Amino acid sequence: MPLRVRSKFWIEDDQGRPIFGWGRGLILEKIDQLGSIRATAKELQMSYRAVWGKIKATEERLGLKLVETSRGGGRGRGARLTPEAKKLLTMFQELHHQGNTLADTLFKKIFSDLN
Amino acid sequence: MPLRVRSKFWIEDDQGRPIFGWGRGLILEKIDQLGSIRATAKELQMSYRAVWGKIKATEERLGLKLVETSRGGGRGRGARLTPEAKKLLTMFQELHHQGNTLADTLFKKIFSDLN
Repeated sequence: MPLRVRSKFWIEDDQGRPIFGWGRGLILEKIDQLGSIRATAKELQMSYRAVWGKIKATEERLGLKLVETSRGGGRGRGARLTPEAKKLLTMFQELHHQGNTLADTLFKKIFSDLN
Repeated sequence: MPLRVRSKFWIEDDQGRPIFGWGRGLILEKIDQLGSIRATAKELQMSYRAVWGKIKATEERLGLKLVETSRGGGRGRGARLTPEAKKLLTMFQELHHQGNTLADTLFKKIFSDLN
């Protein structure tokens, strides 16, 4: 039976409130691809309010702007990531990738030693 | 506001069923310390059946014996880890430790770059 190792990383504040993790990473990725919060919410099957609320919460807790919206009103309104958001996203993907690679390596070692 | 990075690792089968993770690691640690499944269950505020069920499920899925019980009947019955269980536990703790260290390093890098 094939086994696999899984890993999860997230950033929280000292009260355990989520600051950034896989879900918010996905939100930023989609905004970067689609240029729209509305389209991102639809694709992730979330409400607009939920997506915007998570972005706002992270922005407030980090004291950084992550998403800029160009005001044009209504559906034509575009959204794009700030340089800080792009850096946060890239580094988080790197953490995820390196963490998974490390986990795979140690997992293989455990099971070659056990069997 | 202090922020921190958290990480979690677990092993699952190809259907996403849990094989080993933080909770089972804690069960093995306590059995190793206390020499008793009953005392382990009490300390972890779990039922005896739940503790034993998790051990059995992991043993069956790995095809390895993890806990040996010395038959003496009743409360005097002792439990100890097999060498395979000790190795699994040590390697899992190592995965957790190295994963956390990596996460801390990348986290510091993200935030020194962002600010």
